[in-house]
Amino acid sequence: MLSKIEHIALAVSDLEAAIDHYTQIWGLSLEHRETVEDQGVEEAMFRLGDSYLQLLAPLSPESPVGRFIRRSGEGLHHIAYEVDDIEQALSDLKKSGVTLIDEQPRTGSRGTKIAFVHPKGNLGLLVELVQKS
Amino acid sequence: MLSKIEHIALAVSDLEAAIDHYTQIWGLSLEHRETVEDQGVEEAMFRLGDSYLQLLAPLSPESPVGRFIRRSGEGLHHIAYEVDDIEQALSDLKKSGVTLIDEQPRTGSRGTKIAFVHPKGNLGLLVELVQKS
Repeated sequence: MLSKIEHIALAVSDLEAAIDHYTQIWGLSLEHRETVEDQGVEEAMFRLGDSYLQLLAPLSPESPVGRFIRRSGEGLHHIAYEVDDIEQALSDLKKSGVTLIDEQPRTGSRGTKIAFVHPKGNLGLLVELVQKS
Repeated sequence: MLSKIEHIALAVSDLEAAIDHYTQIWGLSLEHRETVEDQGVEEAMFRLGDSYLQLLAPLSPESPVGRFIRRSGEGLHHIAYEVDDIEQALSDLKKSGVTLIDEQPRTGSRGTKIAFVHPKGNLGLLVELVQKS
């Protein structure tokens, strides 16, 4: 079902400061930046091998990532797995009894098809499925 | 400095149940399993593309992962980056003012050289550096 880790998402409060941190201290190069109004975030993507490191900054304190940071602080937010057929993956997961946040794919950043899987019933892990366009 | 995401580590309470979950629901194959007394964990590794998903179960409630689960529940624990030269990476990070948990590499699972970087001063992210043997 899963072909690879598409990205690891990190919640950050200050996107500019976090981009500086990953550029200057960790030596990564910023590859993509996008505001995703639907998810209430501004994101920055750094390529790391065959995957990305994704920084997610909340557009408002009441957005999901804003509430996450208030509750848990900055840090690891979710993993995104790349899949070839997101509709099939969602159907298989639903049959397995996994709780889906998105029963149908929606449009993510970079024109991808995405869907989230609830951490409840998935050993505490928030998962995003990503199908490239 | 970083060549790729070597693994994503997930804290789990019950390793057998978690292995079943990742095998049966997510279709992954268990590739390696090892008890690392030094870190107070039993771990299970699943290959996922060019990286691994690592499950970490505490050997005792007072181990670091045991305390993590009591405090935060099961879920994302740390990211491990692969580096070519771990001594050089630690030296560069120290010069950048990053707080190191391990000033010198120690032996990790699979005979790797590893060192941890403190989440404080790294935007809340616990990082493991891994150099393959």
